[in-house]
Amino acid sequence: MAAKRVRYLKIGIIGLGPRSPAQIIGTKDVGNAVVTAICDCDESRIEPSLKLMRDNQMKRPRTYLDYRELLADPEVEAVMVPASWNPHIPIAIDAMRAGKYVACEVGGACSIQQLWDLVHASEETGIPCMMLENCCYGRDEMLALNLVRQGLFGEIIYCEGGYEHYLGGLARTIESGRERSFHNLRRNGDLYPTHALGPISKILNINRGNRFVSLTSTATKARGFAAAAEKNGGKGSGGHRDFNKGDVITTVIKCANGEVITLKHCVSLPRPYSRSCRVQGTRGIWLEDAKGIFIEGRSKVETHGPPGATWQVEKWDTVESYYEEHDHPLWKSFRDNITGGHGGMDTLVIQAFFDAVRHRAPTPIDVYDCAAWMSITCLSEDSIAMGSAPVPVPDFTNGKWIKREPERETPWMLSEIYKG
Amino acid sequence: MAAKRVRYLKIGIIGLGPRSPAQIIGTKDVGNAVVTAICDCDESRIEPSLKLMRDNQMKRPRTYLDYRELLADPEVEAVMVPASWNPHIPIAIDAMRAGKYVACEVGGACSIQQLWDLVHASEETGIPCMMLENCCYGRDEMLALNLVRQGLFGEIIYCEGGYEHYLGGLARTIESGRERSFHNLRRNGDLYPTHALGPISKILNINRGNRFVSLTSTATKARGFAAAAEKNGGKGSGGHRDFNKGDVITTVIKCANGEVITLKHCVSLPRPYSRSCRVQGTRGIWLEDAKGIFIEGRSKVETHGPPGATWQVEKWDTVESYYEEHDHPLWKSFRDNITGGHGGMDTLVIQAFFDAVRHRAPTPIDVYDCAAWMSITCLSEDSIAMGSAPVPVPDFTNGKWIKREPERETPWMLSEIYKG
Repeated sequence: MAAKRVRYLKIGIIGLGPRSPAQIIGTKDVGNAVVTAICDCDESRIEPSLKLMRDNQMKRPRTYLDYRELLADPEVEAVMVPASWNPHIPIAIDAMRAGKYVACEVGGACSIQQLWDLVHASEETGIPCMMLENCCYGRDEMLALNLVRQGLFGEIIYCEGGYEHYLGGLARTIESGRERSFHNLRRNGDLYPTHALGPISKILNINRGNRFVSLTSTATKARGFAAAAEKNGGKGSGGHRDFNKGDVITTVIKCANGEVITLKHCVSLPRPYSRSCRVQGTRGIWLEDAKGIFIEGRSKVETHGPPGATWQVEKWDTVESYYEEHDHPLWKSFRDNITGGHGGMDTLVIQAFFDAVRHRAPTPIDVYDCAAWMSITCLSEDSIAMGSAPVPVPDFTNGKWIKREPERETPWMLSEIYKG
Repeated sequence: MAAKRVRYLKIGIIGLGPRSPAQIIGTKDVGNAVVTAICDCDESRIEPSLKLMRDNQMKRPRTYLDYRELLADPEVEAVMVPASWNPHIPIAIDAMRAGKYVACEVGGACSIQQLWDLVHASEETGIPCMMLENCCYGRDEMLALNLVRQGLFGEIIYCEGGYEHYLGGLARTIESGRERSFHNLRRNGDLYPTHALGPISKILNINRGNRFVSLTSTATKARGFAAAAEKNGGKGSGGHRDFNKGDVITTVIKCANGEVITLKHCVSLPRPYSRSCRVQGTRGIWLEDAKGIFIEGRSKVETHGPPGATWQVEKWDTVESYYEEHDHPLWKSFRDNITGGHGGMDTLVIQAFFDAVRHRAPTPIDVYDCAAWMSITCLSEDSIAMGSAPVPVPDFTNGKWIKREPERETPWMLSEIYKG
């Protein structure tokens, strides 16, 4: 996908954990950037990353053990931070303070204060912070966004989504110290809200004429991880552990303009994967689990029953039947040449970041999005801790959301859409 | 379905509104009872019911304008009350006080006090009150119940359901005085919770070792009915009206044993019908909208990815693939000879009521079920009115739920299952 005469961006990567290969390879897939430096405080993670790059014919980068040294490297133009959920926010703050565009991975916050710190770092330096929420670039999510912007769903009223991904194996990775396992062991809230919330926020123009105002959150009992450890015969699990996180977390978010979003988090019960998306307006609906779209006046409605006592039966269209005509423009240009992880989403989100860096433009997912989306995790913990009491969501824009324009004109990916 | 030498029960029907034909014809479908008396305070409704019965070769019943006279009729052995949401609870109370078994239609309560009155009437007289919640007898709901009782889903953790049925026409029936339209116009809460909550309550053994303890409820803005009236060009709609009920109501109920139930109510936005059921345990899940069941160790799991970095992809089984082996016993005996409305559910629920009356046995849905299920409506209104604050659900059993046995041994339909 490399455009001609493109200057190659020089990217630093901080945190060489399980998500880093996707960013290293993603950089290669995008094709107009190079990984010029990598960093991890754990020295043992450096060599596997170097090997990955060698195996993929990528030039050897400089290596660092202290991320502050990488941030001081003048050759590094921007950084991606696939570090884990705790360190990535402070690292992102330091990156902006060092003048580097920064892209965090997904994952929620532990406190509201660290999100204010993130926002202040961006506001004070003028440097953007993007979340690499790849699902914002999912084909169906962008199709829904496009249908909404075309007005085919009418006024949007209600959205739903979730992260429903069976990760029973986490019960066995406590001993190997995998960060995500420990969060599931100790915390009780929606630890991973953004895969569905990101795309939904774009659809609802959150922080641009709309915002999250409050939420309630409710947890079930916690049985799944213990059951998963038991199925493994306790092998490698260190025996029984009481996980604090309820198996299913349900969070209901109210928005300023009267919409409601229901989010689910479920990683400890066996089931097929789903992001459980639903986008519903006065004229139409997309329901991921039904693999269906219904649009009034367009989708089929059957009439049943005897004359005088008939009733109507609305029928789903398949999602696929909308691709040809209604794919988002970005996907129309991408769909014949899909490359990269997670069905191409990884490529698209990384390319969007690189394009913003290249043009010194705002990132399509900005620091206010990061703060609002990540806040749901700790606010969900707060509400659950207080018996599902409603808790307010801070306005991280301090009122700017009221007059910020919706994103219709904002480039989602400069070079592809605008041939910039 | 008439058994030989069955004595025909004599049934009275109070309230000849839109739901009454289903009960009149349902009585004929069941085949071991006759409608011996009908009643409505609106005299104009008597003749259409008589005509319906004539057209169906049913014997002419006695007719009443005052339901207290019907209740005093010594020939009436039990009453069904398809009256609307406001009057059916006081009528049911008077029926029990008159010594008649009573069956209400579905619909929520307006206050907790009227539910206590209902419970006290049953406790003081020893007469059961049943809700004719036909969805408790739906094939898929009973299949799920059976799978749960067989242990195939493991320990149940989370359930979901809803009433998602586009009733845009209600916006036009304000003028004709249809009761349900007025509730949607004035109230803001889950007005119709029991189609999903009934079957889920049976699965979770509510009031039998478990109970609802609290809930939160959240409403979206209200746009759907106004849009529906507008589409009609204001014709018959009396012009624009501001409906108070939000288009989508989301209610999250916590249970004593740590399960959570999420309920949705959505009748004003166009979409295909669904009861949106989900029943999820430590080993399996049924998801209505996916038309799928997944059971660990039984359903297909594919392995993807390169050696050393594989991931698993769980696949749905179709619901249909479980019918042959795992249909509930009641459905196994019914499935080759389905008769009656709503796919047979109406027949089954009415027959269950008649069987209880015939044997002077407890009804399979009892007064505590009625009170707990109907309470969700006014509690949902309370929570919404208080900004989604959690509200407690009363224990209508006054502690009896703690030691009441689960229903495994309770006859769901005496004559069919037990050949009584």
